[in-house]
Amino acid sequence: MQYDQTVESSQNLIPTSRSKVRRLPKQGSYERDLIYKILDEGLVCQVGIAVEGQPFVIPTAYARVGDRLYIHGSPLSRMMRTLSSGVEVCITVTLIDGLVLARSAFHHSMNYRSVVIFGTATVDSELEQKAIALEAFSNHIAPERWAEVRQPNTKELEATIVLALPLVEASAKVRVGHPTDESEDYSLPIWAGGIPLKLTADLPIDDARLLVGIKPPDYAMNYLRFSNK
Amino acid sequence: MQYDQTVESSQNLIPTSRSKVRRLPKQGSYERDLIYKILDEGLVCQVGIAVEGQPFVIPTAYARVGDRLYIHGSPLSRMMRTLSSGVEVCITVTLIDGLVLARSAFHHSMNYRSVVIFGTATVDSELEQKAIALEAFSNHIAPERWAEVRQPNTKELEATIVLALPLVEASAKVRVGHPTDESEDYSLPIWAGGIPLKLTADLPIDDARLLVGIKPPDYAMNYLRFSNK
Repeated sequence: MQYDQTVESSQNLIPTSRSKVRRLPKQGSYERDLIYKILDEGLVCQVGIAVEGQPFVIPTAYARVGDRLYIHGSPLSRMMRTLSSGVEVCITVTLIDGLVLARSAFHHSMNYRSVVIFGTATVDSELEQKAIALEAFSNHIAPERWAEVRQPNTKELEATIVLALPLVEASAKVRVGHPTDESEDYSLPIWAGGIPLKLTADLPIDDARLLVGIKPPDYAMNYLRFSNK
Repeated sequence: MQYDQTVESSQNLIPTSRSKVRRLPKQGSYERDLIYKILDEGLVCQVGIAVEGQPFVIPTAYARVGDRLYIHGSPLSRMMRTLSSGVEVCITVTLIDGLVLARSAFHHSMNYRSVVIFGTATVDSELEQKAIALEAFSNHIAPERWAEVRQPNTKELEATIVLALPLVEASAKVRVGHPTDESEDYSLPIWAGGIPLKLTADLPIDDARLLVGIKPPDYAMNYLRFSNK
């Protein structure tokens, strides 16, 4: 029993004063598998920093490798330079799963899955490390892409800042299911329920300068963000 | 001429040191119409605050009425209480429009539209003001919804904090179109192009306790987030 509990706690994260879900704590989770699944499905994260008390939130691409979240950018980016100095960062990823329409205006809501991560990022400055991160960014978009494209050269790797944030202090928050109405409202003749939403792909658009005879790969023709759904 | 210029400048926002787009400034815009269009299409915003130097980013629903962005929440919410005290806030809305697959790993990108807003929020404490904001939240999801549902009562209005952020210090950032590759890479036999992405709705799901005979309204059966596309 003791052993099983240890295994369990190594799989899940330990909430801290920052990462603990206080509002609607039943929607909160510290399960590593759930947090990773949300991160792997999302495409854009929101990077929050404070500069002399002023908050900045900047959307950017990301990728996960094991228990690290990678972001990358140009050395010209103010955000990348600030993060490189080791300031506290808060990164969120939010997936919208649907609208929740209740019988009362007050109880309208949304179904969603979100992750919030706290910590400080470290700079991966070795070119080999940067290449691993860039491979992860390609694979995050399409697992087969990296092997097909022209790999980054030294100049490109040097022109990229790669930052890694450890996935240690993080939590997920998830709302699923039907609306919750006041008891007396269930007798009202008003439609209530959910409208499921998801990010879907249209057919790929060839680059204007594509060589004649090159067709889009299967993963572009049938792009699916949600392989597990 | 002078008059026209005045009209023009009243329509667009003036960039400040915070809201000026520094990275890839050609993708930046201060056009009010564009900023409003992005805000009206999005469903979730990311609210960034700094508490004693620690950044927090929290996803939440929002709505726009004229030149104000509304968010709402419970008086029990730490974020709502902090914002009510008049701290600086940074709110972003991000729409993902597609993946941009280049011939080189380095030039992979995303098409997106985002808005960043800076300022301080004010509390709308009058019940009439709160009702206007709640109507805007309903209408933001579906323009016909408010008139069909049970309106908020005094108890519900009192249990809601409504915050308004003026849309004065804001900018949009937009990437559209094809990938940009290095000149020498255009001869590589690699597929390149875009995969368009959009948030789409599935058929509505009736609430488990829906009264017999009530059908989903048209806006739920044919839910479309992008009326202008």
